[in-house]
Amino acid sequence: MRVVLAAGTTRTAEIDGSSAAGAGSDALQHTPSADAELVEYGTTIRAPATPVSPTGCPTPALVTRAVRELVGFDLLVVDGGLAVPTGAPTMSVGAKPGRDVREADPVPTAPGAFVAARRLGRALPDDTLVVGETIPGGTTTAMAVMRALGEPWPVSSSLPVNPLDLKERVVADALDASNLDPGEAAHNPLLAARFVGDPVLATVAGLVAGALGSGTRVVLGGGTQLLAAAALVRHAGVAEPLTLATTPYLAADVGLDEAALALDVDVTVTDPGFEGAPEPLARMAAGEAKEGACMGGALWLAERAGDLDVVATQTLDSVDTDGW
Amino acid sequence: MRVVLAAGTTRTAEIDGSSAAGAGSDALQHTPSADAELVEYGTTIRAPATPVSPTGCPTPALVTRAVRELVGFDLLVVDGGLAVPTGAPTMSVGAKPGRDVREADPVPTAPGAFVAARRLGRALPDDTLVVGETIPGGTTTAMAVMRALGEPWPVSSSLPVNPLDLKERVVADALDASNLDPGEAAHNPLLAARFVGDPVLATVAGLVAGALGSGTRVVLGGGTQLLAAAALVRHAGVAEPLTLATTPYLAADVGLDEAALALDVDVTVTDPGFEGAPEPLARMAAGEAKEGACMGGALWLAERAGDLDVVATQTLDSVDTDGW
Repeated sequence: MRVVLAAGTTRTAEIDGSSAAGAGSDALQHTPSADAELVEYGTTIRAPATPVSPTGCPTPALVTRAVRELVGFDLLVVDGGLAVPTGAPTMSVGAKPGRDVREADPVPTAPGAFVAARRLGRALPDDTLVVGETIPGGTTTAMAVMRALGEPWPVSSSLPVNPLDLKERVVADALDASNLDPGEAAHNPLLAARFVGDPVLATVAGLVAGALGSGTRVVLGGGTQLLAAAALVRHAGVAEPLTLATTPYLAADVGLDEAALALDVDVTVTDPGFEGAPEPLARMAAGEAKEGACMGGALWLAERAGDLDVVATQTLDSVDTDGW
Repeated sequence: MRVVLAAGTTRTAEIDGSSAAGAGSDALQHTPSADAELVEYGTTIRAPATPVSPTGCPTPALVTRAVRELVGFDLLVVDGGLAVPTGAPTMSVGAKPGRDVREADPVPTAPGAFVAARRLGRALPDDTLVVGETIPGGTTTAMAVMRALGEPWPVSSSLPVNPLDLKERVVADALDASNLDPGEAAHNPLLAARFVGDPVLATVAGLVAGALGSGTRVVLGGGTQLLAAAALVRHAGVAEPLTLATTPYLAADVGLDEAALALDVDVTVTDPGFEGAPEPLARMAAGEAKEGACMGGALWLAERAGDLDVVATQTLDSVDTDGW
């Protein structure tokens, strides 16, 4: 068993009001690099601070790290287009930072990253991979990818109130900029990932396709970005079973059932019981950081190990709280 | 506690008869990439095969991996100048493959790698680091660095019979090519690492200097290459305690006591009891693969965990034997 964290960036995150995965535009580009360090080391070692939302809620990577301290999973960080170097060891699949999806060709490295990640997914020796992501702005690109594939499913948000109108406008502009009609990229996942997606979606889709194709069980740890990756995998013609392990906060934010049925994805929701816990966990429970950095996948692992009831305590105890 | 494996290359290894860390000149450049994969995954995933010596003895990385299965240490692979990409996640310190030490400026990336690795060593949050290396040809560059620093200590070999005459000639040529007299680089470790060293020595020396300077305990896991790194650290003015954890095969090959005393390094030798074990372990015990890929450091960890008596069985059981 191994957790694979695809960490990358898209300048789509710089659109005002689109992401809470960092305290501002400059901080946002550090978030995936910092998340990778937090899950690897339990502290940032090169990134300037622990990522927080504009309202001060810390990154879900802290929960993923706490679970790692409890259950001791192996970690592979894949560079899905990092904008600043991370202090965590990473594997390259050739992904570079994505540009704003409203540009004409925002992710030229997507096809190459998909192919290299698929090879990696085939080669990894584990019987189970739990795959997560960290990319600010990723729900907007996830929505654009869903629409390009002709998939009508909703996406969640890292913000307490999902800026859906804004996302719909960005997605419409993205499809326009690349001369794509909704549904035009059906059965052509590389087209969708490259022209309206982000480098993390391409990386995750390739990894998952490769792993499934070689008989590896895959659990997607996350929310609607992982569901968009699942859509890419299904549109690549890969039919093996897939599970999405997510948090109750994500599941409460957006209906997953219809999408999961349509994409043939089993959904499992694991509740860490953060309601009533001290800050900042209670804020997570209130929906301020619903998913990210494989939090849902980590909680699923904690439950399987019988450690779910101590995740809250471990998160508060074990993780460096600088920057909270 | 974390094991840091610096993996890199020097074209010095292509000098006929200088290294057994691979079955030939082409295989040699894959050895560090393969060793990193073996310790990370227990199998190669991108490298063409498990490295073997010209006589068929497999890499000591198998033992390090077996110990990892037993005691579960965290691993950080630092790219100390890999010639081919590895399937293991790596941290870059800017090191590039070293050229033949008989050229005038074989390791121009050494000063930059030293500084970046020192910063990494300072930043890592662990209370103990166990630092190892994998670089074919590294004992020749280690000897050249010792001489440039004015340190008279002998170096070991991955070959059953140490080609000392050949190494002495290469070292003399290396010093000539860079216009250095023996001892001229004393107290100037960057000069030695750059002009007669290799990128792994620069990386390890920087890491160790940074870690020691920030209060981290450092155990060098390896043989005379790590001793040369210790010499670089001492010549950088770093005086904190250092331990070298090595194998009985290395200790039998070369006297370590005087060098350890002179460099203020404690030596600890851990015997995994491979004599009489099945192939290929008995061949290791006979001196065909004395050290490398942090084998000595891993054995020290196994002993501390009370698992030393099962290392042989675990090595035979758990590791993919393709290519043996």
